[in-house]
Amino acid sequence: MMMNTPLVMTQMFERAEKYYPKKYVVSRTDGGINKYAYREIAERTRRLASSLEKLGVDRGDRIGTLAWNHHRHLEAYFAIPCSGAVLHTINFRLSPQHVSYIVNHAEDKLLLIDADVVPLIEAIQDTLQNVKGYIIMTDSKELPETKLSPVYHYEQLISEGNPAHQFPQDLDENSPAGMCYTSATTGNPKGVVYSHRGTVLHSLGLGLADNLGIAERDNAMPVVPMFHVNAWGLPFAAVWFGSNLVMPGPYFTPKILAELIQSEKVTVTAGVPTIWLGLLKELAENEYDTSSLRAIVCGGSAAPKSMIKTFEQKYNIPFIHAYGMTETSPLVFTSNLKSYHDELADEEKYELKAKQGMTVPCIDIKVLGKDGEVKNDGKEMGELLIRGPWIASEYYRDERTEGAFKDGWLYTGDVVTVDEEGFVKIVDRTKDLIKSGGEWISSVDLENALMAHEAVFEAAVIAVPHERWQERPVACVVLHEPYKGKVTKEEMIEFLAPQFAKWWLPDDVLFLEEIPKTGVGKFLKMALREQIQGKYLAQ
Amino acid sequence: MMMNTPLVMTQMFERAEKYYPKKYVVSRTDGGINKYAYREIAERTRRLASSLEKLGVDRGDRIGTLAWNHHRHLEAYFAIPCSGAVLHTINFRLSPQHVSYIVNHAEDKLLLIDADVVPLIEAIQDTLQNVKGYIIMTDSKELPETKLSPVYHYEQLISEGNPAHQFPQDLDENSPAGMCYTSATTGNPKGVVYSHRGTVLHSLGLGLADNLGIAERDNAMPVVPMFHVNAWGLPFAAVWFGSNLVMPGPYFTPKILAELIQSEKVTVTAGVPTIWLGLLKELAENEYDTSSLRAIVCGGSAAPKSMIKTFEQKYNIPFIHAYGMTETSPLVFTSNLKSYHDELADEEKYELKAKQGMTVPCIDIKVLGKDGEVKNDGKEMGELLIRGPWIASEYYRDERTEGAFKDGWLYTGDVVTVDEEGFVKIVDRTKDLIKSGGEWISSVDLENALMAHEAVFEAAVIAVPHERWQERPVACVVLHEPYKGKVTKEEMIEFLAPQFAKWWLPDDVLFLEEIPKTGVGKFLKMALREQIQGKYLAQ
Repeated sequence: MMMNTPLVMTQMFERAEKYYPKKYVVSRTDGGINKYAYREIAERTRRLASSLEKLGVDRGDRIGTLAWNHHRHLEAYFAIPCSGAVLHTINFRLSPQHVSYIVNHAEDKLLLIDADVVPLIEAIQDTLQNVKGYIIMTDSKELPETKLSPVYHYEQLISEGNPAHQFPQDLDENSPAGMCYTSATTGNPKGVVYSHRGTVLHSLGLGLADNLGIAERDNAMPVVPMFHVNAWGLPFAAVWFGSNLVMPGPYFTPKILAELIQSEKVTVTAGVPTIWLGLLKELAENEYDTSSLRAIVCGGSAAPKSMIKTFEQKYNIPFIHAYGMTETSPLVFTSNLKSYHDELADEEKYELKAKQGMTVPCIDIKVLGKDGEVKNDGKEMGELLIRGPWIASEYYRDERTEGAFKDGWLYTGDVVTVDEEGFVKIVDRTKDLIKSGGEWISSVDLENALMAHEAVFEAAVIAVPHERWQERPVACVVLHEPYKGKVTKEEMIEFLAPQFAKWWLPDDVLFLEEIPKTGVGKFLKMALREQIQGKYLAQ
Repeated sequence: MMMNTPLVMTQMFERAEKYYPKKYVVSRTDGGINKYAYREIAERTRRLASSLEKLGVDRGDRIGTLAWNHHRHLEAYFAIPCSGAVLHTINFRLSPQHVSYIVNHAEDKLLLIDADVVPLIEAIQDTLQNVKGYIIMTDSKELPETKLSPVYHYEQLISEGNPAHQFPQDLDENSPAGMCYTSATTGNPKGVVYSHRGTVLHSLGLGLADNLGIAERDNAMPVVPMFHVNAWGLPFAAVWFGSNLVMPGPYFTPKILAELIQSEKVTVTAGVPTIWLGLLKELAENEYDTSSLRAIVCGGSAAPKSMIKTFEQKYNIPFIHAYGMTETSPLVFTSNLKSYHDELADEEKYELKAKQGMTVPCIDIKVLGKDGEVKNDGKEMGELLIRGPWIASEYYRDERTEGAFKDGWLYTGDVVTVDEEGFVKIVDRTKDLIKSGGEWISSVDLENALMAHEAVFEAAVIAVPHERWQERPVACVVLHEPYKGKVTKEEMIEFLAPQFAKWWLPDDVLFLEEIPKTGVGKFLKMALREQIQGKYLAQ
């Protein structure tokens, strides 16, 4: 019938190498901004793969990366999966305990680390059980002083590598290509494994004219970190289709992003709302030419309607509102309007655009309310279930799989409505997570910590809207009778501080008489949010 | 890891039904031009599927169609494969003998036939071995008078069908979805079977911004017949992505096409060069508004450079030159330029655009010359080999599979060069086929027939360039000594006429003293073409 040619990432890499040797990556590192042709990137990728092989990397081995968005990370993005190993991108902003858990749980064999992340790994080195070596990515000719051992210089490995190294031609499309951990409601992060097949199909999805339309003519800038669901798959699609890539590197600011958009004529860029709120502020304060932008892609949290409007109306930059999760590779919805929506009034258009939108081709959803599937009336609420060839079927070696994956569907925990046009809108979360600047914070973990304080009777931590970070945690605390009036907000925060990353700490602590509950005694967080969020800035 | 959600056509159909009920098909039939919303098309598709089931259609059964491009054929395009049966589109322009062979070889269980094709099937009905029934597609309320039996009225089946019929949810992505026969160098046509997986992936390919970019905003008009490689897959992609479809129906003329482009604001259309040469003539003679067109897609034969230039420069219509075969679903190459080609002079751009171009994502090629793979220098020639997930791996129950499919590659028989940019150009064919107006003519079959004439010593039939049909056959005949000067061109044509479709007959018969041959006595057709084609119009 048809050939059983597998869908594997090697074909993506080799197509770029063959057709687009002159296209390039603009990479901002601590050494400055440099341009690398794909011809060079491809050769370095082969060199890296051959050096990894010499270091003992085998098929199926997990190789961790703790790095910003730059050309070296991009080389690892292809060298590792094309070798049959697993690209395990790690969020180095998590607490050291979580990073240690992740590296051990994935049994990472090697870690590729940006120089500025080295101190984090040094602090947990003793807890790492399977790591056989540390590769430091830096522009500097010398390795930084470090107690990591054994340690390798990335550029040394490149120069010793074989530029004609051949990738295996017999990879199975269902073998693992990548891996990423996502925060859990409580406890340790949960791992998701991406297959070659899923990655190839997801990349095709990104190339569809009606989704992101990634094309050779693009200068694509992934601002979303490469440790967040593979920068939403953008580097894979961009390389496959021959786009130039613009990598914003470490510690970028809105000003740096605006300058890169202008100087590199960026056509499409992707990131969380916090990033775009920052960019809007910069554009208001200083003059930039952003006319090259054909799309700002926004996901990770709901994009506020006012922001979408400002980009489109004031700056004439088309805005693509998207939705996805670590478990979904991530593309599930885009809120691109249908052609006949051209006839709607502006306000109606932006109402639609502020929704999460319609599923992209290949993805199915089901919205389950109390009595089965909800009506498409924009009112009835239900939990969002997702299915498709780039949706995870489990958490990696994790019993929490049971709660989230049932009957072939992913239960997202997001509560949504669906309108007559099929547009999905997220209205609540069944999960107790707060999303701050695109990163998850577990309300349950904060609550448990607060409850451990001798003065606390009960505590609920909820998300309140925030202009810059989208959501921030606020703690609602009921004190034991003897402590009422005698404990301060500051004392509570101080109590939490040693246990959490700094950005997890609640912005405020409210002392209440009681916390509203359901009939079975669960916190009614939606009611609580309604009760208190007037105190905080809403979009 | 990732869900094993299969890539099946049901998801394409159900997505259109769910999200695009208001989008529509404009269908030109003998009853006029009408508009049908996808809501209606979807319901009719379910009705048709339920009626086919009642007629005994089972999974894997081949169901033949002999029909023009219209909404009923589109309904069959989804009702049949979504039921797990096989959509077998049949080229009714072939000789009755070939049509009979095809229906029998595929063991078609039912035939769906346009009213005007009924006489062809009546003439061969007695030879059809497995057909259990004939379904006639017509706007007329009454069935035409026919001796076909048992015979059903398509609209009767629709009205009796179940609008809520459910498609099976357990189709395997590697199960057959479609089937199409292609002309062979000699002898009977060869069958190609398309899988669900291949069709879904090919449709994603058509949606890529860098290929055809089929999108919701399109009004897509497939002019290429639905019996030619599924109208190049356009109906599948257009429905999946929610484009409106414009179906030009039976016996269309360039004038009808131009009028449809104007009235339906067609944005993208696809067909063979002969069609576009006809359209150019019409545009030169009469005034039309073609400003809605964002792309004319041209394949099936090489598009002449002058034609590409005229469309782009005179009419401002972007032209996409593509290449494929029945065996390749068909999309393999497009000659879309790279962004940095913007800097080339016009003449250089059109040189590139007139080539077949670069492979689309998911497809691999290899060009084998005498000493292995050729250099990318635009000069060295070799045979084109193709591989990919929508490329056939065999001919259906046919021993000719052996000659064309080897070591996991399709040997196309096309001789090509590859330039520094990776653009492939077809320079010759190893196979003895002539392509006239997008249809194949076997030179070997004509030669064998000529050799059977008592006056003929030897005969070679070659392709000469033709303004309207791209290529036409010309016979080169060497007569036995006693007959020289005593046989006319007209006698030869008259001799062939009863044995072939009219359009197969050579345009000319040249009487030569000898036919150039290779060392081992094979005709040197390339030399022969060079020798005589000056006599005929070249582009």
